[in-house]
Amino acid sequence: MRTAPTSLTNLTDLIALSLQPFWCWRQAAESLRAGDPPSVVLERLLAIRKCPSADISVLRARASDAISRALEDGISALPWSDPLYPPALAAIVDPPFVLWTRGAAASLERPAVAMVGSRAASPYGLAVAERLASDLAARGIVVVSGLARGVDSAAHRGALSGGGSTIAVLGSGVDVIYPPEHRALARDIEATGLVMSELVPGTPPLKPFFPLRNRVISGLSRAIVIIEAGEKSGSLITARSALDQGRDVLAVPGNVLSGRNRGAHALLRDGAKIVEDADDILEELGMPAPAVHGSASASGDPILECLTPGEPADLDAIAERAGVAPARLLPRLFELELKGLVARAGGGRFIRS
Amino acid sequence: MRTAPTSLTNLTDLIALSLQPFWCWRQAAESLRAGDPPSVVLERLLAIRKCPSADISVLRARASDAISRALEDGISALPWSDPLYPPALAAIVDPPFVLWTRGAAASLERPAVAMVGSRAASPYGLAVAERLASDLAARGIVVVSGLARGVDSAAHRGALSGGGSTIAVLGSGVDVIYPPEHRALARDIEATGLVMSELVPGTPPLKPFFPLRNRVISGLSRAIVIIEAGEKSGSLITARSALDQGRDVLAVPGNVLSGRNRGAHALLRDGAKIVEDADDILEELGMPAPAVHGSASASGDPILECLTPGEPADLDAIAERAGVAPARLLPRLFELELKGLVARAGGGRFIRS
Repeated sequence: MRTAPTSLTNLTDLIALSLQPFWCWRQAAESLRAGDPPSVVLERLLAIRKCPSADISVLRARASDAISRALEDGISALPWSDPLYPPALAAIVDPPFVLWTRGAAASLERPAVAMVGSRAASPYGLAVAERLASDLAARGIVVVSGLARGVDSAAHRGALSGGGSTIAVLGSGVDVIYPPEHRALARDIEATGLVMSELVPGTPPLKPFFPLRNRVISGLSRAIVIIEAGEKSGSLITARSALDQGRDVLAVPGNVLSGRNRGAHALLRDGAKIVEDADDILEELGMPAPAVHGSASASGDPILECLTPGEPADLDAIAERAGVAPARLLPRLFELELKGLVARAGGGRFIRS
Repeated sequence: MRTAPTSLTNLTDLIALSLQPFWCWRQAAESLRAGDPPSVVLERLLAIRKCPSADISVLRARASDAISRALEDGISALPWSDPLYPPALAAIVDPPFVLWTRGAAASLERPAVAMVGSRAASPYGLAVAERLASDLAARGIVVVSGLARGVDSAAHRGALSGGGSTIAVLGSGVDVIYPPEHRALARDIEATGLVMSELVPGTPPLKPFFPLRNRVISGLSRAIVIIEAGEKSGSLITARSALDQGRDVLAVPGNVLSGRNRGAHALLRDGAKIVEDADDILEELGMPAPAVHGSASASGDPILECLTPGEPADLDAIAERAGVAPARLLPRLFELELKGLVARAGGGRFIRS
């Protein structure tokens, strides 16, 4: 297990902090950020009434046990203070004190995009998640999600099928794969990417951990894409935390009759960017696609050549230049208008657009 | 046929103007708006080279023939100058000189919403068009469309099934129903709404007439809803003319994998309002729905009652007020957060939102 350059004492105390109830985490993070050593933060925290006190030696022993257990099970612990800890995640108000990981740590150093959505996704939602993730992965983007049923696992699978790597952030210890049918997927993910959690190994998948886990998914990512989120979906909490963290929020539209996309559409209403394909996401990241989709082939059109950009011309003038009768010219001009290459100007004139 | 208070002479000359090529219309409209009598505008137009000249007496004879034919066929002619001419349509830069109509003229006096989209719509597009139109019609909104295959006819049918009236604007004379399989639909529309055209009766459905017809569809309407428009759809021309006319443009999202919604999604990207149901349209028109969808029932929640709006409280305080152990309180708070009724504030506190 890699722990340098953080001392083992510091690591132990950071783990002990993560064993405190989550509503103490933000306050502890503030103290650490202010430069207080983990041991001081831990002692101070235990003195505060609202964080249920526990004997500090008991906590440290539990932390040490977690480290030993991780060593045996091939799990790494990456503390906040480590230079390899992802800077984007370190920058959120309540970063995990320690990231427990299994897999290829190099995947933390690449640009990442989160993709989350319904656990009970439709075939459409699954197909979109898989395609977007595959296309992003093929372009070197790491796809982050939560290993849940539905959209999450489709995103992980898509990234793997695109030949890229993907990160699964769990709401349990990294050695407690939930749902259990995703164990094989988790192993596939570890081959080139990471399975990670801020919870000590062995932690069971309890309900309150999942909303907390969502802030890590968005915190690791430059942008977050929502696919099929109902009106009261947990994905909307992830979207809100992404916004709080200053991440771009994007959403995939869909069927308005099924009710499955009410959450995604609500985000679009509130200014989320619309995603139809991976290029839309790359563009938002400032990584424009090399190839463009469609319609640059109409140049060389003889009618278009008779129009000077910026100069409206009337039908007679264009007809004369093109050597075509006005009546035969019109259907061509309408076609060009439909293609967005020509627009109508005032007084029955046309302009190249 | 109702022609008063416009004199028959004026009507004849306005019809003669509409017999001129469309690229002369805007200029003629400007002159009429400046107060020039139709006869003067017509004479001046015929003197301009780019409007193919025709003998004025021949034009007037054709116009008179159109009036006689309309009288025989139960078609009304509503000139621009008539007080019943819809003010919204009169306000566009190039309003039709004469509206030839069949059906119930009263439908022109009610708030109208246009609904247009793909002629080759998917079952989803047709279902959305029909449902939205039905719901709008049930709320007293007149649904305007183009009687085309696909979304247009679904919108007309939906409005009729909702017990309301609908207006079909044709790209041919009102007595030339295209496509022919919509003849029965046109008759149903006339019973409570209108079939209308700016083209003299008998005009065949030629390609250039359809983009022109689109400006009338949007011109009659306070808002326009796009359903399933591909990337180069004619519906986008209607949307552009609607924007030029200062109308609200709204779009229905859908499947991003089929390519059928690229146009609608492009409009959403450009700021069109997203439509999931009729309430979204009514809201845009400033006609909010009386009933609200969902989730106003959570008031009276005992946990929520322990939170004073605007005052963050920590877990212990809420637990004390509610008489519940903090550990048992958390899952409830997460549920309330998911419902958007509670938000997390700094320092592990919660706030009623």
